[in-house]
Amino acid sequence: MTTALHTTAATQACCAPLVAAPLDPQDAEALARTLKALADPTRLRLLSLVAAHEGGEACVCDLTDPVGLSQPTVSHHLKVLVDAGLLTRDKRGVWAYYALVPGALDAVAAVLGTQLRR
Amino acid sequence: MTTALHTTAATQACCAPLVAAPLDPQDAEALARTLKALADPTRLRLLSLVAAHEGGEACVCDLTDPVGLSQPTVSHHLKVLVDAGLLTRDKRGVWAYYALVPGALDAVAAVLGTQLRR
Repeated sequence: MTTALHTTAATQACCAPLVAAPLDPQDAEALARTLKALADPTRLRLLSLVAAHEGGEACVCDLTDPVGLSQPTVSHHLKVLVDAGLLTRDKRGVWAYYALVPGALDAVAAVLGTQLRR
Repeated sequence: MTTALHTTAATQACCAPLVAAPLDPQDAEALARTLKALADPTRLRLLSLVAAHEGGEACVCDLTDPVGLSQPTVSHHLKVLVDAGLLTRDKRGVWAYYALVPGALDAVAAVLGTQLRR
Protein backbone atom coordinates (compact mmCIF):
# COMPACT_ATOMS: atom_id res chain seq x y z
CA MET A 1 0.00 0.00 0.00
CA THR A 2 1.36 3.37 -0.97
CA THR A 3 1.04 5.91 1.81
CA ALA A 4 -1.26 8.81 1.02
CA LEU A 5 0.57 11.90 -0.21
CA HIS A 6 -0.01 14.83 2.04
CA THR A 7 -0.18 18.36 0.73
CA THR A 8 3.36 19.26 1.54
CA ALA A 9 5.54 22.27 1.72
CA ALA A 10 7.13 21.22 -1.56
CA THR A 11 3.84 21.57 -3.36
CA GLN A 12 2.39 24.38 -1.24
CA ALA A 13 5.28 26.68 -1.98
CA CYS A 14 5.32 25.76 -5.68
CA CYS A 15 6.53 27.38 -7.95
CA ALA A 16 7.13 31.13 -8.28
CA PRO A 17 10.83 31.89 -7.75
CA LEU A 18 11.40 33.50 -4.36
CA VAL A 19 13.47 36.18 -6.05
CA ALA A 20 10.51 37.27 -8.20
CA ALA A 21 8.47 38.74 -5.35
CA PRO A 22 8.74 38.75 -1.55
CA LEU A 23 7.72 35.35 -0.11
CA ASP A 24 4.78 35.60 2.24
CA PRO A 25 5.34 34.23 5.76
CA GLN A 26 3.22 31.10 5.19
CA ASP A 27 5.06 30.10 2.02
CA ALA A 28 8.38 30.81 3.75
CA GLU A 29 7.41 28.50 6.65
CA ALA A 30 6.36 25.72 4.27
CA LEU A 31 9.48 25.97 2.15
CA ALA A 32 11.72 26.10 5.25
CA ARG A 33 10.14 22.85 6.51
CA THR A 34 10.93 21.07 3.25
CA LEU A 35 14.46 22.48 3.19
CA LYS A 36 15.03 21.29 6.79
CA ALA A 37 14.16 17.75 5.68
CA LEU A 38 16.68 18.11 2.84
CA ALA A 39 19.42 19.83 4.87
CA ASP A 40 21.12 16.67 6.06
CA PRO A 41 23.94 14.94 4.19
CA THR A 42 22.63 11.42 4.84
CA ARG A 43 19.14 12.32 3.64
CA LEU A 44 20.54 13.95 0.50
CA ARG A 45 22.55 10.79 -0.22
CA LEU A 46 19.48 8.59 0.42
CA LEU A 47 17.38 10.63 -2.04
CA SER A 48 20.16 10.35 -4.56
CA LEU A 49 20.59 6.60 -4.01
CA VAL A 50 16.85 5.93 -4.27
CA ALA A 51 16.63 7.91 -7.53
CA ALA A 52 19.65 6.15 -9.02
CA HIS A 53 18.50 2.66 -7.95
CA GLU A 54 17.11 0.19 -10.47
CA GLY A 55 13.51 1.09 -11.27
CA GLY A 56 13.79 4.36 -9.31
CA GLU A 57 12.92 2.65 -6.05
CA ALA A 58 14.87 1.04 -3.23
CA CYS A 59 14.23 -0.67 0.09
CA VAL A 60 16.10 -0.04 3.35
CA CYS A 61 18.02 -3.25 2.59
CA ASP A 62 19.53 -1.56 -0.50
CA LEU A 63 20.49 1.62 1.35
CA THR A 64 22.21 0.69 4.62
CA ASP A 65 25.48 -0.44 3.01
CA PRO A 66 26.01 2.60 0.73
CA VAL A 67 25.51 5.10 3.57
CA GLY A 68 27.22 2.92 6.21
CA LEU A 69 24.49 3.34 8.82
CA SER A 70 22.22 0.95 10.73
CA GLN A 71 18.79 0.03 9.42
CA PRO A 72 16.91 1.92 12.19
CA THR A 73 18.91 5.08 11.45
CA VAL A 74 18.30 4.80 7.72
CA SER A 75 14.59 4.10 8.35
CA HIS A 76 14.38 7.23 10.50
CA HIS A 77 15.90 9.40 7.76
CA LEU A 78 13.58 7.85 5.16
CA LYS A 79 10.57 8.63 7.37
CA VAL A 80 11.62 12.30 7.54
CA LEU A 81 11.75 12.37 3.73
CA VAL A 82 8.36 10.64 3.42
CA ASP A 83 6.81 13.05 5.95
CA ALA A 84 8.20 15.99 3.97
CA GLY A 85 6.50 14.73 0.82
CA LEU A 86 9.77 13.96 -0.95
CA LEU A 87 9.58 10.15 -0.97
CA THR A 88 6.73 7.65 -1.29
CA ARG A 89 6.74 4.45 0.78
CA ASP A 90 5.21 1.28 -0.61
CA LYS A 91 5.12 -1.79 1.67
CA ARG A 92 5.37 -5.06 -0.28
CA GLY A 93 5.94 -8.26 1.66
CA VAL A 94 8.76 -7.95 4.16
CA TRP A 95 10.16 -4.66 2.86
CA ALA A 96 9.00 -1.12 2.23
CA TYR A 97 10.10 0.39 -1.07
CA TYR A 98 10.86 4.07 -1.42
CA ALA A 99 10.68 6.23 -4.54
CA LEU A 100 10.85 9.96 -5.29
CA VAL A 101 7.54 11.81 -5.26
CA PRO A 102 7.31 12.96 -8.89
CA GLY A 103 7.84 16.70 -9.14
CA ALA A 104 8.60 17.33 -5.47
CA LEU A 105 12.30 18.14 -5.87
CA ASP A 106 11.58 20.12 -9.03
CA ALA A 107 9.05 22.21 -7.11
CA VAL A 108 11.69 23.13 -4.52
CA ALA A 109 14.22 23.84 -7.28
CA ALA A 110 11.70 26.06 -9.07
CA VAL A 111 11.17 28.22 -5.97
CA LEU A 112 14.91 28.55 -5.26
CA GLY A 113 16.06 29.15 -8.83
CA THR A 114 15.90 32.62 -10.27
CA GLN A 115 14.10 31.68 -13.47
CA LEU A 116 10.54 30.50 -13.93
CA ARG A 117 10.57 26.87 -15.02
CA ARG A 118 7.57 24.66 -15.72
CA MET B 1 34.23 47.01 0.48
CA THR B 2 32.65 43.84 -0.79
CA THR B 3 33.48 40.84 1.35
CA ALA B 4 35.47 38.16 -0.41
CA LEU B 5 33.36 35.36 -1.78
CA HIS B 6 34.31 32.07 -0.28
CA THR B 7 34.16 28.86 -2.25
CA THR B 8 30.90 27.72 -0.86
CA ALA B 9 28.74 24.67 -0.78
CA ALA B 10 26.50 26.28 -3.37
CA THR B 11 29.31 26.34 -5.89
CA GLN B 12 31.16 23.23 -4.69
CA ALA B 13 28.14 21.02 -5.15
CA CYS B 14 27.29 22.60 -8.53
CA CYS B 15 25.53 21.41 -10.72
CA ALA B 16 24.78 17.76 -11.55
CA PRO B 17 21.29 16.85 -10.33
CA LEU B 18 21.47 14.63 -7.25
CA VAL B 19 19.02 12.25 -8.88
CA ALA B 20 21.38 11.63 -11.81
CA ALA B 21 23.99 9.73 -9.81
CA PRO B 22 24.60 9.02 -6.11
CA LEU B 23 25.97 12.12 -4.35
CA ASP B 24 29.37 11.51 -2.80
CA PRO B 25 29.66 12.21 0.94
CA GLN B 26 31.67 15.43 0.48
CA ASP B 27 29.17 16.96 -1.97
CA ALA B 28 26.32 15.88 0.31
CA GLU B 29 27.97 17.65 3.29
CA ALA B 30 28.52 20.83 1.27
CA LEU B 31 24.98 20.90 -0.11
CA ALA B 32 23.49 20.18 3.35
CA ARG B 33 25.39 23.18 4.77
CA THR B 34 23.91 25.50 2.15
CA LEU B 35 20.43 24.04 2.64
CA LYS B 36 20.72 24.56 6.42
CA ALA B 37 21.38 28.25 5.80
CA LEU B 38 18.29 28.36 3.58
CA ALA B 39 16.05 26.24 5.84
CA ASP B 40 14.71 29.11 7.93
CA PRO B 41 11.57 31.09 7.10
CA THR B 42 13.08 34.46 8.06
CA ARG B 43 16.19 33.86 5.96
CA LEU B 44 14.08 32.80 2.97
CA ARG B 45 12.04 35.99 3.31
CA LEU B 46 15.21 38.09 3.61
CA LEU B 47 16.66 36.59 0.42
CA SER B 48 13.39 37.26 -1.32
CA LEU B 49 13.17 40.85 -0.02
CA VAL B 50 16.76 41.63 -1.00
CA ALA B 51 16.19 40.27 -4.51
CA ALA B 52 12.95 42.22 -4.95
CA HIS B 53 14.39 45.48 -3.56
CA GLU B 54 15.22 48.39 -5.83
CA GLY B 55 18.51 47.72 -7.59
CA GLY B 56 18.63 44.16 -6.24
CA GLU B 57 20.25 45.26 -3.00
CA ALA B 58 19.03 46.28 0.43
CA CYS B 59 20.44 47.38 3.77
CA VAL B 60 19.33 46.15 7.20
CA CYS B 61 17.39 49.40 7.49
CA ASP B 62 15.16 48.25 4.58
CA LEU B 63 14.57 44.78 5.99
CA THR B 64 13.67 45.06 9.67
CA ASP B 65 10.14 46.40 9.09
CA PRO B 66 9.04 43.82 6.48
CA VAL B 67 10.12 40.87 8.63
CA GLY B 68 9.10 42.49 11.93
CA LEU B 69 12.35 41.67 13.74
CA SER B 70 15.05 43.72 15.47
CA GLN B 71 18.12 44.93 13.60
CA PRO B 72 20.53 42.61 15.49
CA THR B 73 18.34 39.59 14.68
CA VAL B 74 18.09 40.55 11.01
CA SER B 75 21.87 41.20 10.89
CA HIS B 76 22.50 37.73 12.34
CA HIS B 77 20.34 36.07 9.67
CA LEU B 78 22.04 38.11 6.94
CA LYS B 79 25.45 37.00 8.22
CA VAL B 80 24.40 33.34 7.96
CA LEU B 81 23.40 33.95 4.34
CA VAL B 82 26.67 35.78 3.58
CA ASP B 83 28.71 32.99 5.23
CA ALA B 84 26.83 30.42 3.11
CA GLY B 85 27.81 32.27 -0.06
CA LEU B 86 24.24 33.27 -0.87
CA LEU B 87 24.49 37.04 -0.25
CA THR B 88 27.24 39.61 -0.75
CA ARG B 89 27.78 42.38 1.81
CA ASP B 90 29.03 45.79 0.71
CA LYS B 91 29.71 48.39 3.42
CA ARG B 92 29.08 51.95 2.21
CA GLY B 93 29.05 54.72 4.79
CA VAL B 94 26.84 53.92 7.74
CA TRP B 95 25.12 50.90 6.22
CA ALA B 96 26.04 47.55 4.72
CA TYR B 97 24.18 46.64 1.54
CA TYR B 98 23.28 43.06 0.71
CA ALA B 99 22.70 41.51 -2.71
CA LEU B 100 22.28 37.97 -4.06
CA VAL B 101 25.47 36.22 -5.12
CA PRO B 102 24.85 35.73 -8.84
CA GLY B 103 24.20 32.08 -9.64
CA ALA B 104 24.26 30.80 -6.05
CA LEU B 105 20.55 29.99 -5.74
CA ASP B 106 20.51 28.63 -9.29
CA ALA B 107 23.37 26.27 -8.39
CA VAL B 108 21.35 24.85 -5.48
CA ALA B 109 18.25 24.60 -7.69
CA ALA B 110 20.26 22.78 -10.36
CA VAL B 111 21.42 20.12 -7.89
CA LEU B 112 17.94 19.58 -6.43
CA GLY B 113 16.01 19.60 -9.70
CA THR B 114 15.76 16.46 -11.76
CA GLN B 115 16.78 18.03 -15.04
CA LEU B 116 20.15 19.36 -16.10
CA ARG B 117 19.92 23.14 -16.50
CA ARG B 118 22.63 25.55 -17.52
